[in-house]
Amino acid sequence: MKTKQIQKELVNGVDVPKLTQIIDELTQNPNLAQFHFCAKNNWVNGGENQTTVNEFYGGSVKHVRSKPFVFTKDEPTVLLGHDQGANPVEYALTALAGCVTTTLVYYASAMNVKINKVESTLEGDIDLRGLLNIDENIKAGYKSIDIKFKIDSDASPETLHKLMEIAKKHSPVANTITNATPINVSLA
Amino acid sequence: MKTKQIQKELVNGVDVPKLTQIIDELTQNPNLAQFHFCAKNNWVNGGENQTTVNEFYGGSVKHVRSKPFVFTKDEPTVLLGHDQGANPVEYALTALAGCVTTTLVYYASAMNVKINKVESTLEGDIDLRGLLNIDENIKAGYKSIDIKFKIDSDASPETLHKLMEIAKKHSPVANTITNATPINVSLA
Repeated sequence: MKTKQIQKELVNGVDVPKLTQIIDELTQNPNLAQFHFCAKNNWVNGGENQTTVNEFYGGSVKHVRSKPFVFTKDEPTVLLGHDQGANPVEYALTALAGCVTTTLVYYASAMNVKINKVESTLEGDIDLRGLLNIDENIKAGYKSIDIKFKIDSDASPETLHKLMEIAKKHSPVANTITNATPINVSLA
Repeated sequence: MKTKQIQKELVNGVDVPKLTQIIDELTQNPNLAQFHFCAKNNWVNGGENQTTVNEFYGGSVKHVRSKPFVFTKDEPTVLLGHDQGANPVEYALTALAGCVTTTLVYYASAMNVKINKVESTLEGDIDLRGLLNIDENIKAGYKSIDIKFKIDSDASPETLHKLMEIAKKHSPVANTITNATPINVSLA
Protein backbone atom coordinates (compact mmCIF):
# COMPACT_ATOMS: atom_id res chain seq x y z
CA MET A 1 0.00 0.00 0.00
CA LYS A 2 1.41 3.36 -1.01
CA THR A 3 0.11 6.35 0.89
CA LYS A 4 -0.06 9.89 -0.43
CA GLN A 5 1.47 12.66 1.61
CA ILE A 6 -1.53 14.70 2.64
CA GLN A 7 -2.29 17.71 4.75
CA LYS A 8 -5.27 16.53 6.76
CA GLU A 9 -4.90 13.61 9.11
CA LEU A 10 -8.26 11.91 8.67
CA VAL A 11 -9.40 10.72 5.25
CA ASN A 12 -12.69 8.80 5.40
CA GLY A 13 -12.12 8.59 9.16
CA VAL A 14 -8.76 6.84 8.67
CA ASP A 15 -5.65 8.41 10.22
CA VAL A 16 -3.41 8.33 7.14
CA PRO A 17 -0.18 9.60 8.77
CA LYS A 18 -0.58 6.83 11.36
CA LEU A 19 -1.26 4.31 8.58
CA THR A 20 1.91 5.47 6.80
CA GLN A 21 3.84 5.05 10.05
CA ILE A 22 2.45 1.51 10.57
CA ILE A 23 3.44 0.51 7.02
CA ASP A 24 6.98 1.84 7.62
CA GLU A 25 7.27 0.01 10.95
CA LEU A 26 5.99 -3.32 9.60
CA THR A 27 8.28 -3.05 6.58
CA GLN A 28 11.27 -2.57 8.85
CA ASN A 29 10.20 -5.07 11.51
CA PRO A 30 8.04 -7.91 10.11
CA ASN A 31 7.57 -9.35 13.63
CA LEU A 32 5.23 -6.46 14.36
CA ALA A 33 3.03 -7.60 11.46
CA GLN A 34 2.24 -10.96 13.08
CA PHE A 35 -1.30 -10.95 14.49
CA HIS A 36 -3.02 -13.80 16.29
CA PHE A 37 -6.82 -13.81 16.60
CA CYS A 38 -9.04 -16.13 18.61
CA ALA A 39 -12.63 -16.91 19.53
CA LYS A 40 -14.18 -19.15 22.18
CA ASN A 41 -17.41 -20.97 21.50
CA ASN A 42 -19.97 -22.68 23.71
CA TRP A 43 -22.78 -24.86 22.43
CA VAL A 44 -26.13 -23.91 24.00
CA ASN A 45 -28.70 -26.39 22.60
CA GLY A 46 -29.64 -27.79 19.19
CA GLY A 47 -28.52 -25.28 16.56
CA GLU A 48 -27.77 -22.52 19.07
CA ASN A 49 -24.28 -21.60 20.25
CA GLN A 50 -22.48 -18.56 21.54
CA THR A 51 -19.08 -17.14 20.62
CA THR A 52 -17.00 -14.77 22.73
CA VAL A 53 -14.33 -12.59 21.13
CA ASN A 54 -12.03 -10.52 23.28
CA GLU A 55 -8.24 -10.65 23.32
CA PHE A 56 -5.87 -10.87 20.38
CA TYR A 57 -2.14 -10.60 19.91
CA GLY A 58 -0.47 -8.05 17.65
CA GLY A 59 3.31 -7.96 17.39
CA SER A 60 3.54 -10.29 20.42
CA VAL A 61 1.56 -7.84 22.54
CA LYS A 62 -1.71 -9.05 24.07
CA HIS A 63 -4.62 -6.68 23.53
CA VAL A 64 -7.73 -7.02 25.70
CA ARG A 65 -10.98 -5.17 25.09
CA SER A 66 -12.79 -3.30 27.86
CA LYS A 67 -15.55 -5.91 27.48
CA PRO A 68 -15.88 -8.99 25.29
CA PHE A 69 -18.02 -9.15 22.15
CA VAL A 70 -20.57 -11.97 22.41
CA PHE A 71 -22.46 -13.47 19.45
CA THR A 72 -25.43 -15.80 19.44
CA LYS A 73 -25.86 -18.07 16.45
CA ASP A 74 -28.87 -20.21 15.77
CA GLU A 75 -30.71 -21.76 12.86
CA PRO A 76 -34.11 -20.61 11.60
CA THR A 77 -37.01 -22.98 12.31
CA VAL A 78 -36.89 -24.40 8.76
CA LEU A 79 -33.38 -25.61 9.67
CA LEU A 80 -34.54 -26.98 13.04
CA GLY A 81 -33.46 -24.05 15.19
CA HIS A 82 -35.28 -21.35 17.15
CA ASP A 83 -33.96 -18.29 15.28
CA GLN A 84 -32.22 -16.79 18.30
CA GLY A 85 -29.49 -15.37 16.06
CA ALA A 86 -28.26 -15.23 12.48
CA ASN A 87 -26.93 -18.57 11.33
CA PRO A 88 -23.23 -19.32 10.74
CA VAL A 89 -23.30 -18.93 6.94
CA GLU A 90 -24.90 -15.50 7.43
CA TYR A 91 -22.11 -14.63 9.91
CA ALA A 92 -19.64 -15.63 7.20
CA LEU A 93 -21.21 -13.08 4.81
CA THR A 94 -21.12 -10.53 7.65
CA ALA A 95 -17.39 -11.13 8.17
CA LEU A 96 -16.68 -10.86 4.46
CA ALA A 97 -18.80 -7.70 4.06
CA GLY A 98 -16.89 -5.98 6.85
CA CYS A 99 -13.50 -7.02 5.63
CA VAL A 100 -13.84 -5.98 1.98
CA THR A 101 -15.42 -2.68 3.05
CA THR A 102 -12.64 -1.82 5.51
CA THR A 103 -9.94 -2.85 3.04
CA LEU A 104 -11.54 -0.71 0.33
CA VAL A 105 -11.89 2.32 2.62
CA TYR A 106 -8.32 2.05 4.00
CA TYR A 107 -6.83 1.83 0.50
CA ALA A 108 -9.01 4.71 -0.70
CA SER A 109 -7.82 6.78 2.27
CA ALA A 110 -4.19 5.95 1.50
CA MET A 111 -4.80 7.15 -2.07
CA ASN A 112 -6.52 10.29 -0.72
CA VAL A 113 -9.78 9.27 -2.44
CA LYS A 114 -12.73 10.70 -0.55
CA ILE A 115 -15.56 8.20 -0.05
CA ASN A 116 -19.04 9.42 0.91
CA LYS A 117 -20.90 6.13 1.09
CA VAL A 118 -20.22 2.40 0.59
CA GLU A 119 -23.13 0.00 0.52
CA SER A 120 -22.86 -3.62 -0.45
CA THR A 121 -25.04 -6.67 -0.84
CA LEU A 122 -23.56 -10.12 -0.45
CA GLU A 123 -25.31 -13.23 -1.69
CA GLY A 124 -24.49 -16.90 -1.95
CA ASP A 125 -26.11 -20.25 -2.69
CA ILE A 126 -25.80 -23.37 -0.60
CA ASP A 127 -27.09 -26.82 -1.55
CA LEU A 128 -28.09 -28.46 1.74
CA ARG A 129 -27.41 -31.90 0.28
CA GLY A 130 -23.70 -31.20 0.91
CA LEU A 131 -24.18 -30.49 4.62
CA LEU A 132 -26.46 -33.51 5.02
CA ASN A 133 -24.20 -35.75 2.91
CA ILE A 134 -27.12 -36.79 0.72
CA ASP A 135 -24.75 -36.60 -2.26
CA GLU A 136 -20.98 -36.80 -1.72
CA ASN A 137 -20.28 -34.84 -4.89
CA ILE A 138 -22.05 -31.71 -3.72
CA LYS A 139 -20.00 -28.93 -2.07
CA ALA A 140 -21.24 -28.27 1.46
CA GLY A 141 -20.24 -24.60 1.41
CA TYR A 142 -21.05 -21.59 -0.72
CA LYS A 143 -20.68 -22.34 -4.44
CA SER A 144 -19.51 -18.74 -4.84
CA ILE A 145 -20.24 -15.39 -3.22
CA ASP A 146 -21.38 -12.30 -5.12
CA ILE A 147 -20.61 -8.85 -3.72
CA LYS A 148 -22.38 -5.88 -5.28
CA PHE A 149 -20.97 -2.52 -4.22
CA LYS A 150 -22.67 0.84 -4.45
CA ILE A 151 -20.09 3.55 -3.83
CA ASP A 152 -20.71 7.28 -3.63
CA SER A 153 -17.43 9.08 -4.34
CA ASP A 154 -15.94 11.67 -6.67
CA ALA A 155 -13.45 9.06 -7.86
CA SER A 156 -13.64 7.78 -11.44
CA PRO A 157 -15.30 4.42 -12.19
CA GLU A 158 -11.81 3.11 -13.05
CA THR A 159 -10.51 4.04 -9.60
CA LEU A 160 -13.55 2.46 -7.93
CA HIS A 161 -13.07 -0.74 -9.93
CA LYS A 162 -9.41 -0.78 -8.93
CA LEU A 163 -10.36 -0.31 -5.26
CA MET A 164 -12.88 -3.17 -5.46
CA GLU A 165 -10.29 -5.51 -6.94
CA ILE A 166 -7.75 -4.48 -4.27
CA ALA A 167 -10.39 -5.15 -1.61
CA LYS A 168 -11.08 -8.62 -2.99
CA LYS A 169 -7.37 -9.45 -3.22
CA HIS A 170 -6.09 -7.95 0.04
CA SER A 171 -9.04 -8.34 2.41
CA PRO A 172 -7.95 -11.04 4.90
CA VAL A 173 -11.42 -12.64 4.99
CA ALA A 174 -11.82 -12.60 1.18
CA ASN A 175 -8.31 -14.01 0.84
CA THR A 176 -9.09 -16.74 3.40
CA ILE A 177 -12.17 -17.76 1.38
CA THR A 178 -10.79 -17.53 -2.17
CA ASN A 179 -7.68 -19.52 -1.31
CA ALA A 180 -7.98 -22.99 0.17
CA THR A 181 -7.16 -22.28 3.83
CA PRO A 182 -6.40 -25.33 5.98
CA ILE A 183 -8.46 -25.99 9.11
CA ASN A 184 -6.97 -28.27 11.77
CA VAL A 185 -9.33 -29.89 14.28
CA SER A 186 -8.25 -31.57 17.50
CA LEU A 187 -9.79 -32.85 20.70
CA ALA A 188 -8.64 -31.52 24.08
CA MET B 1 -26.42 -38.34 6.95
CA LYS B 2 -28.04 -41.49 8.23
CA THR B 3 -30.41 -41.10 11.14
CA LYS B 4 -31.20 -43.75 13.72
CA GLN B 5 -34.81 -44.58 14.40
CA ILE B 6 -35.29 -43.38 17.93
CA GLN B 7 -38.06 -43.14 20.47
CA LYS B 8 -37.62 -39.63 21.75
CA GLU B 9 -37.99 -36.69 19.40
CA LEU B 10 -35.32 -34.35 20.71
CA VAL B 11 -31.70 -35.46 20.90
CA ASN B 12 -29.38 -32.65 21.99
CA GLY B 13 -32.25 -30.28 21.28
CA VAL B 14 -32.46 -31.46 17.65
CA ASP B 15 -35.77 -32.84 16.38
CA VAL B 16 -34.46 -36.04 14.81
CA PRO B 17 -37.73 -37.28 13.25
CA LYS B 18 -38.02 -33.87 11.55
CA LEU B 19 -34.37 -34.10 10.45
CA THR B 20 -35.07 -37.55 8.99
CA GLN B 21 -38.09 -36.13 7.17
CA ILE B 22 -36.03 -33.23 5.75
CA ILE B 23 -33.34 -35.62 4.50
CA ASP B 24 -36.02 -37.74 2.78
CA GLU B 25 -37.64 -34.69 1.19
CA LEU B 26 -34.36 -33.20 -0.08
CA THR B 27 -33.29 -36.59 -1.45
CA GLN B 28 -36.53 -36.85 -3.42
CA ASN B 29 -36.71 -33.20 -4.42
CA PRO B 30 -33.25 -31.54 -4.73
CA ASN B 31 -34.89 -28.18 -5.50
CA LEU B 32 -35.89 -27.96 -1.85
CA ALA B 33 -32.20 -28.20 -0.89
CA GLN B 34 -31.31 -24.93 -2.66
CA PHE B 35 -30.78 -22.15 -0.12
CA HIS B 36 -29.86 -18.56 -0.86
CA PHE B 37 -28.41 -16.37 1.89
CA CYS B 38 -27.71 -12.65 1.86
CA ALA B 39 -26.39 -9.74 3.93
CA LYS B 40 -26.50 -5.98 3.45
CA ASN B 41 -23.63 -3.83 4.59
CA ASN B 42 -23.24 -0.09 5.22
CA TRP B 43 -19.95 1.62 5.86
CA VAL B 44 -20.12 3.94 8.88
CA ASN B 45 -16.68 5.60 9.14
CA GLY B 46 -13.03 4.50 9.03
CA GLY B 47 -12.89 0.83 10.03
CA GLU B 48 -16.50 0.72 11.23
CA ASN B 49 -19.37 -0.76 9.26
CA GLN B 50 -22.69 -2.43 9.95
CA THR B 51 -24.24 -5.55 8.46
CA THR B 52 -27.93 -6.42 8.46
CA VAL B 53 -29.07 -10.02 8.05
CA ASN B 54 -32.74 -10.82 7.67
CA GLU B 55 -34.36 -12.70 4.81
CA PHE B 56 -33.14 -15.82 3.05
CA TYR B 57 -34.57 -18.21 0.50
CA GLY B 58 -34.97 -21.93 1.12
CA GLY B 59 -36.49 -24.14 -1.57
CA SER B 60 -37.61 -21.00 -3.45
CA VAL B 61 -39.57 -19.79 -0.42
CA LYS B 62 -38.62 -16.42 1.09
CA HIS B 63 -38.17 -16.51 4.86
CA VAL B 64 -38.21 -13.25 6.80
CA ARG B 65 -37.29 -12.93 10.46
CA SER B 66 -39.50 -11.10 12.95
CA LYS B 67 -36.66 -8.56 13.23
CA PRO B 68 -33.31 -8.27 11.46
CA PHE B 69 -29.98 -9.20 13.05
CA VAL B 70 -27.58 -6.24 12.99
CA PHE B 71 -23.82 -6.49 13.48
CA THR B 72 -21.29 -3.75 14.06
CA LYS B 73 -17.73 -4.37 12.96
CA ASP B 74 -14.80 -2.15 13.75
CA GLU B 75 -11.05 -2.37 14.16
CA PRO B 76 -9.22 -2.07 17.47
CA THR B 77 -7.24 1.14 17.98
CA VAL B 78 -3.95 -0.59 17.08
CA LEU B 79 -5.53 -1.16 13.64
CA LEU B 80 -6.79 2.44 13.42
CA GLY B 81 -10.37 1.82 14.54
CA HIS B 82 -12.40 2.68 17.63
CA ASP B 83 -13.19 -0.85 18.81
CA GLN B 84 -16.95 -0.47 18.43
CA GLY B 85 -17.24 -4.14 17.47
CA ALA B 86 -15.23 -7.28 16.82
CA ASN B 87 -13.24 -7.03 13.63
CA PRO B 88 -14.04 -8.95 10.43
CA VAL B 89 -11.43 -11.70 10.90
CA GLU B 90 -12.87 -12.33 14.37
CA TYR B 91 -16.36 -12.54 12.83
CA ALA B 92 -14.95 -15.15 10.45
CA LEU B 93 -13.82 -17.27 13.42
CA THR B 94 -17.28 -16.71 14.98
CA ALA B 95 -18.98 -17.98 11.81
CA LEU B 96 -16.71 -21.01 11.63
CA ALA B 97 -17.13 -21.82 15.34
CA GLY B 98 -20.90 -21.82 15.02
CA CYS B 99 -20.96 -23.87 11.86
CA VAL B 100 -18.68 -26.71 12.96
CA THR B 101 -20.49 -26.87 16.31
CA THR B 102 -23.96 -27.08 14.76
CA THR B 103 -22.80 -29.64 12.19
CA LEU B 104 -21.21 -31.76 14.92
CA VAL B 105 -24.31 -31.59 17.13
CA TYR B 106 -26.76 -32.35 14.27
CA TYR B 107 -24.74 -35.40 13.18
CA ALA B 108 -24.39 -36.57 16.80
CA SER B 109 -28.15 -36.25 17.21
CA ALA B 110 -28.76 -38.22 14.00
CA MET B 111 -26.49 -40.96 15.42
CA ASN B 112 -28.36 -40.78 18.76
CA VAL B 113 -25.13 -39.73 20.51
CA LYS B 114 -25.97 -37.66 23.58
CA ILE B 115 -23.79 -34.55 23.94
CA ASN B 116 -23.60 -32.72 27.26
CA LYS B 117 -21.20 -29.93 26.38
CA VAL B 118 -19.21 -28.68 23.39
CA GLU B 119 -16.62 -25.98 23.89
CA SER B 120 -14.16 -24.89 21.28
CA THR B 121 -11.33 -22.45 20.83
CA LEU B 122 -10.47 -21.15 17.37
CA GLU B 123 -7.18 -19.48 16.58
CA GLY B 124 -5.44 -18.18 13.50
CA ASP B 125 -2.45 -16.10 12.46
CA ILE B 126 -2.50 -13.22 10.03
CA ASP B 127 0.55 -11.42 8.67
CA LEU B 128 -0.56 -7.80 8.14
CA ARG B 129 1.99 -7.37 5.37
CA GLY B 130 -0.47 -9.22 3.11
CA LEU B 131 -3.35 -6.83 3.79
CA LEU B 132 -1.08 -3.81 3.38
CA ASN B 133 0.65 -5.24 0.28
CA ILE B 134 4.07 -4.68 1.81
CA ASP B 135 5.12 -8.02 0.33
CA GLU B 136 3.16 -9.53 -2.58
CA ASN B 137 4.17 -13.07 -1.65
CA ILE B 138 2.46 -12.96 1.75
CA LYS B 139 -1.08 -14.34 2.06
CA ALA B 140 -3.46 -11.63 3.26
CA GLY B 141 -5.77 -14.09 5.03
CA TYR B 142 -5.42 -16.70 7.75
CA LYS B 143 -2.47 -19.03 7.14
CA SER B 144 -4.56 -21.77 8.74
CA ILE B 145 -7.17 -22.02 11.48
CA ASP B 146 -6.89 -24.34 14.49
CA ILE B 147 -10.04 -25.57 16.21
CA LYS B 148 -9.66 -27.28 19.59
CA PHE B 149 -12.80 -29.02 20.80
CA LYS B 150 -13.61 -30.04 24.34
CA ILE B 151 -16.62 -32.36 24.26
CA ASP B 152 -18.43 -33.83 27.23
CA SER B 153 -20.29 -36.95 26.07
CA ASP B 154 -20.58 -40.64 26.85
CA ALA B 155 -19.44 -41.39 23.29
CA SER B 156 -16.07 -43.05 22.70
CA PRO B 157 -13.06 -40.95 21.67
CA GLU B 158 -13.28 -42.69 18.26
CA THR B 159 -16.86 -41.49 17.80
CA LEU B 160 -15.93 -37.97 18.87
CA HIS B 161 -13.01 -37.89 16.44
CA LYS B 162 -15.33 -39.11 13.69
CA LEU B 163 -17.85 -36.36 14.55
CA MET B 164 -15.10 -33.71 14.48
CA GLU B 165 -13.95 -34.84 11.05
CA ILE B 166 -17.55 -34.88 9.77
CA ALA B 167 -18.01 -31.35 11.14
CA LYS B 168 -14.88 -30.14 9.35
CA LYS B 169 -15.91 -31.78 6.07
CA HIS B 170 -19.64 -31.03 6.01
CA SER B 171 -19.89 -27.68 7.82
CA PRO B 172 -20.79 -25.15 5.10
CA VAL B 173 -18.49 -22.46 6.53
CA ALA B 174 -15.54 -24.86 7.02
CA ASN B 175 -16.10 -26.17 3.50
CA THR B 176 -16.21 -22.61 2.11
CA ILE B 177 -12.86 -21.87 3.76
CA THR B 178 -10.98 -25.11 3.06
CA ASN B 179 -11.96 -25.09 -0.61
CA ALA B 180 -11.11 -22.13 -2.79
CA THR B 181 -14.52 -20.45 -3.07
CA PRO B 182 -14.83 -17.80 -5.80
CA ILE B 183 -15.88 -14.27 -4.87
CA ASN B 184 -17.31 -12.05 -7.61
CA VAL B 185 -17.27 -8.29 -7.10
CA SER B 186 -19.23 -5.79 -9.14
CA LEU B 187 -20.24 -2.15 -9.03
CA ALA B 188 -23.91 -1.16 -9.11
